Amino acid sequence: MNVPRAVDWSPDGEAVELLDQTLLPEHEQRLLLHGAADGLAAIRDMRVRGAPAIGITAALVLAVEATRAARDTPGGFRREVERAAELLETARPTAVNLRWALDRLRGIVAESAARSPVETAQRLRAEASAILEEDRAMCLRIGEHGLTLLDPLRPRVLTHCNAGALATGGIGTALAPLYVAHDVGRQVRVYARETRPLLQGSRLTVWELARAGLDVVLLPDSAAGILLQQGAVDAILVGADRIAANGDVANKVGTYELAVLARYHGVPFYVAAPTSTFDAATPTGADIPIEERDPDEVRHGFGDWTAPRDAAVFAPAFDVTPAALVDALVTDQGILRPPYGPGIERLVAGGLQPAPEEA
Amino acid sequence: MNVPRAVDWSPDGEAVELLDQTLLPEHEQRLLLHGAADGLAAIRDMRVRGAPAIGITAALVLAVEATRAARDTPGGFRREVERAAELLETARPTAVNLRWALDRLRGIVAESAARSPVETAQRLRAEASAILEEDRAMCLRIGEHGLTLLDPLRPRVLTHCNAGALATGGIGTALAPLYVAHDVGRQVRVYARETRPLLQGSRLTVWELARAGLDVVLLPDSAAGILLQQGAVDAILVGADRIAANGDVANKVGTYELAVLARYHGVPFYVAAPTSTFDAATPTGADIPIEERDPDEVRHGFGDWTAPRDAAVFAPAFDVTPAALVDALVTDQGILRPPYGPGIERLVAGGLQPAPEEA
Repeated sequence: MNVPRAVDWSPDGEAVELLDQTLLPEHEQRLLLHGAADGLAAIRDMRVRGAPAIGITAALVLAVEATRAARDTPGGFRREVERAAELLETARPTAVNLRWALDRLRGIVAESAARSPVETAQRLRAEASAILEEDRAMCLRIGEHGLTLLDPLRPRVLTHCNAGALATGGIGTALAPLYVAHDVGRQVRVYARETRPLLQGSRLTVWELARAGLDVVLLPDSAAGILLQQGAVDAILVGADRIAANGDVANKVGTYELAVLARYHGVPFYVAAPTSTFDAATPTGADIPIEERDPDEVRHGFGDWTAPRDAAVFAPAFDVTPAALVDALVTDQGILRPPYGPGIERLVAGGLQPAPEEA
Repeated sequence: MNVPRAVDWSPDGEAVELLDQTLLPEHEQRLLLHGAADGLAAIRDMRVRGAPAIGITAALVLAVEATRAARDTPGGFRREVERAAELLETARPTAVNLRWALDRLRGIVAESAARSPVETAQRLRAEASAILEEDRAMCLRIGEHGLTLLDPLRPRVLTHCNAGALATGGIGTALAPLYVAHDVGRQVRVYARETRPLLQGSRLTVWELARAGLDVVLLPDSAAGILLQQGAVDAILVGADRIAANGDVANKVGTYELAVLARYHGVPFYVAAPTSTFDAATPTGADIPIEERDPDEVRHGFGDWTAPRDAAVFAPAFDVTPAALVDALVTDQGILRPPYGPGIERLVAGGLQPAPEEA
């Protein structure tokens, strides 16, 4: 699969190589991150986005920083690594994966008290690689499970925002089944909504799918209705920011209305996400606070004022799709369908794996 | 009502005064059109848009041109007026109202064979004024009929695109009931979708409503679902490009999905349009060809390439909402509800006026 890598080790292994997503779709340019200061700037400036990709970037950058600090005394080494971790953490304070990835590396430092800085740095590098490899494997499993839900010949799938390779270390979540389907020779047609205000659909999803050779068509967000009315779509597949314990799904604003349109037109609506997206601490979607985005993303998103400068704006960052509108959750551990019953609880608790369902 | 006038006579009556809509929302600037060449440029460059406003502009401009030509011989006068009408007609070849308005003035010329050029020019000016005044009255009647459908205290209405003052000679079609409601002291809250790709919602609807003192909130197109889910809207009101004889409605793309969302959430969906929008020659919505817009409006709408330059694009100019999803048609002659039966046929045939319905 010719899928772009959002983040990876540099060829010599001494830095982190990042695809600069702020320059897409016009320029495919890679940055080298040589330490925590570079990593902080890249994450803060959104040159990398998507929760998994941000976490991986932070982990790889911290390992690079630790390699450099390994020439220091054991005490100095530990202080340097912790300072770097704290710096990286400030890049996106609300990004759960960022903290999670850094905490995994902190755990390595904590259990390596008896080891030399060089040895600990090697272990940090191995742990960062493990985070990257686990994410790649997770994406691939989502892709394989999701494949079973798609039309066996010519799947025609509508998606929203970017839950693709550019958001992960691998082939994405919502886009993973499409890459896998393409890879096994199915004729995949993808419809991508542009996803205002930040246009992740047109800037990122269309770019990465076209680059990988898939047949992708861009549409304004408000053309989804007529597209479904015309019978052009046989499945909708989106990602998730968070899945509540009852199966309600928080995702980029516009997801909920797609689910309603899907139900009205009898088109199945699927959500693809790793099991790490399930949040046992959130009983239902009603418990998820919905933050609003900067109004200027809507009033002034393209270098011009496209609305009165003082216009009031309703711009929720995401919305919540009730579990009842989701036909299936496609996870790395298999496919779940509502009513979820104890299945989802076991997933949320990280317990038994549900049996993969046949399509 | 402090509603902007899209087009009017200049204060001295010797030219046509146009609000330059290409400069909105940043600059409220008026142009003077002194003849057919000015009118052609203004219509072609979309400084005025909206079918009624375009028709009115053409009629007023032709009357100005006729006043100038009235110093000529009778034969020269007629040739000059016809040349100007043909020039104006080329400005937007598919605009039905443009041709309709010009044909009304041609009719005056044809029946004035016995009159002097000066007298004929005066009659053309009176006819152009009549077209403007009829449009203003039509808007006001739509507003008064539509008012009966709105919440008596604090109507909260979602709209799409711009079917407002800027599209007509008066207070608009879909926005007319909102202006009337505001004028009679109701606390109106309007939600305006930005309406990609050309953003008529954010650039025009938000501007004209806010300028008139209404409480208006802008939202990305894809936030309509969550807005309805939150119970923030008690009616949806949009305009129409064409209404088929069975009541199917063609309007700006995104209208159809709003109608589906409205039905799902139990919110009434209303279409406001003058009876001239009913097309007896179009039996159903399926008979309306749906043209596609320039793909670059989606790929490059804001001065930057926001999608790969060669991305395939699905960008229908409008969509068709089946009559069954429209709770009422708000016309200048009253309110119609499906199943329309013979009522709509009489309207389409320009016959009996339906009795205005009570809210």
